[in-house]
Amino acid sequence: MNAYPERRKRLADTFAARGVAVAMFEDTEGRRDPSVRYFSGHPSDALLFIAAGGQSLLIPWDVNMAASMAHVDRTVAYADFVRSPFKAMAGALAELGISTGAKVDLPSVTPYPMYIKYVEACPDYDFLCGDGGSQETAAGMRAVKDTEEIAIYRKVSQITDHVMDCIETGVKKGELVTEADVALYIERALRERGCDATGFATIAAGPSRSFGIHAIPSYTAAPFGTTGMSILDFGLVYKGYTSDVTMTFVRDTVSGKREEMIRLVEKAYEEAVAMCGPGVKSRDIALRVEAIFAEKSFTMPHGLGHGVGLEAHEMPAINNREDNDWVLAPGHVITIEPGLYDPEAGGVRLENDVLITETGFEVLTHSRIVYL
Amino acid sequence: MNAYPERRKRLADTFAARGVAVAMFEDTEGRRDPSVRYFSGHPSDALLFIAAGGQSLLIPWDVNMAASMAHVDRTVAYADFVRSPFKAMAGALAELGISTGAKVDLPSVTPYPMYIKYVEACPDYDFLCGDGGSQETAAGMRAVKDTEEIAIYRKVSQITDHVMDCIETGVKKGELVTEADVALYIERALRERGCDATGFATIAAGPSRSFGIHAIPSYTAAPFGTTGMSILDFGLVYKGYTSDVTMTFVRDTVSGKREEMIRLVEKAYEEAVAMCGPGVKSRDIALRVEAIFAEKSFTMPHGLGHGVGLEAHEMPAINNREDNDWVLAPGHVITIEPGLYDPEAGGVRLENDVLITETGFEVLTHSRIVYL
Repeated sequence: MNAYPERRKRLADTFAARGVAVAMFEDTEGRRDPSVRYFSGHPSDALLFIAAGGQSLLIPWDVNMAASMAHVDRTVAYADFVRSPFKAMAGALAELGISTGAKVDLPSVTPYPMYIKYVEACPDYDFLCGDGGSQETAAGMRAVKDTEEIAIYRKVSQITDHVMDCIETGVKKGELVTEADVALYIERALRERGCDATGFATIAAGPSRSFGIHAIPSYTAAPFGTTGMSILDFGLVYKGYTSDVTMTFVRDTVSGKREEMIRLVEKAYEEAVAMCGPGVKSRDIALRVEAIFAEKSFTMPHGLGHGVGLEAHEMPAINNREDNDWVLAPGHVITIEPGLYDPEAGGVRLENDVLITETGFEVLTHSRIVYL
Repeated sequence: MNAYPERRKRLADTFAARGVAVAMFEDTEGRRDPSVRYFSGHPSDALLFIAAGGQSLLIPWDVNMAASMAHVDRTVAYADFVRSPFKAMAGALAELGISTGAKVDLPSVTPYPMYIKYVEACPDYDFLCGDGGSQETAAGMRAVKDTEEIAIYRKVSQITDHVMDCIETGVKKGELVTEADVALYIERALRERGCDATGFATIAAGPSRSFGIHAIPSYTAAPFGTTGMSILDFGLVYKGYTSDVTMTFVRDTVSGKREEMIRLVEKAYEEAVAMCGPGVKSRDIALRVEAIFAEKSFTMPHGLGHGVGLEAHEMPAINNREDNDWVLAPGHVITIEPGLYDPEAGGVRLENDVLITETGFEVLTHSRIVYL
């Protein structure tokens, strides 16, 4: 596929309204930004400049990688700028022929001290860095998956479902008995089925550790699926895009506090998914879940969900924060993942990926609470 | 162990010279900072405030996790601030009784737009954000490992050496034949030996992919250890601290360009390690390696090494950048990892972890180029 020039063009079309001459994207350790990949195909470690006319300049760490993967107008090695982002900025503005006085859009995650140094390195330009910039525009573009991206999501969801089925069978048969067994089963299975990696460190937390939202370490040699509640949270990456699901395995005592927690999570999950559709404010869904839990004096210590895509967590936001004004739209792929945690009883979480369609929603993955 | 109050005290002792009343550390998605763990024991997702008197306030996402792992004076749930860092900042300054007009030190990675919002949320305080702040002080403290941390490094190095021996045997015996075989062998072995995780995604790149500095995906179902050069770059995490080693496996044709690259990398590695010691400028070591490669018209497309610790990449810097003014000191644990890459011949890299001692250096891990 070569959707890259068209994506760059769509981005560049937003520049005029803001008077921007060029936008820079940075993908580097500590500030990963898959928008570089989204707009260029280059998967890692680079600066990408997109000018108002749609012209593109990639400054990759690894020129061999760029030669085989990037689709851009021009490439200059980062080493040519002594690996200094400030020298690279000055070089790129010259290379692209950006007039002095022009507005240059920086990523909104640019650290305050780096902002100052860009200004010092290129004093004749006007650097923008804030909400509503190109990084946010890119996040909004990435939130709405196109036909090809949705096809990728159908495929990765199918593989994820199959892996979940195999894990359920393996745990029930007693073939997967530790957290590591489950997590490493996933690592091998995904590669045998054409996926690239897990989308994040698989969380396999047996009953002794499931009280944590994100168990640390993410999996150990401890038992999984024994008496109590075990959480398995994982995602598979296919062509760069990650799925994200959570299963909970429950053995023996489904009663008392555990039973109440499980019923509440199932109820919250079902109501939340049923609310999904175009035009719905994602915050309203999260507030409904909050109310379901609050009625029984429970609080969920994390957001209800999030968009997925080239990152495990991306736009749209799906939470109850006051500043969340996202409205669901066709093409959004989001997670719904209510969970409750108790130091004694352990944790329960149920998570699937949901595609927002023109008329409502489609649940892409089919995780569930498994009773052993 | 409870080194945390002592570490906080040492940090707070640096405040007076800069007129700082309180420093904030943030560990969150997109801005991971293990300094929160270094100063509190809390391993993930929190704001940590350390005041000039050494008082500490932790604002964790997961209060259950904090209750079991954090060693701080006081804890307040992030949810109590509606999960807003700006409200949490205002709350923390009040809770700690910081006088208005006081200097508040922010992490130097704080994005420019967030800096502006902190100022707006707490207009009566003076926010600092730049080089030479507490985040940098913390990085400098973390660079010099104490006795207990060095003991951890001896242990994780021993385990890493053992795993490398097993992998060499497994590849030679034909038991580990794909990139995934090698990478998953590591994942299981480390957990069986008491380690927590890999320090970063294991890179297992067979001959068809070793030309990349960091192969993407990091490992696949492709053959490993077949004709040509295969790179294995991995680290094991023990009690939070990561090792970092790279082996290269060479099969058959050690001649021509491949032979020249291997000999150069070995020569660069040996000279670089021999230069290590207290008082040595790390940049001088990197410049020497650059010269060795340049003499034969090769360029290394990445830095020579880096410190390791709670992060896979931390201080001191070990590279040839003009702004690298690090001087090696006893207690530094660094990697030395020269590598050369060619689209046709493939890549070769050799990496070990080196402890700087009072009198020189000690090579902690024992990776090597393996001839199959």
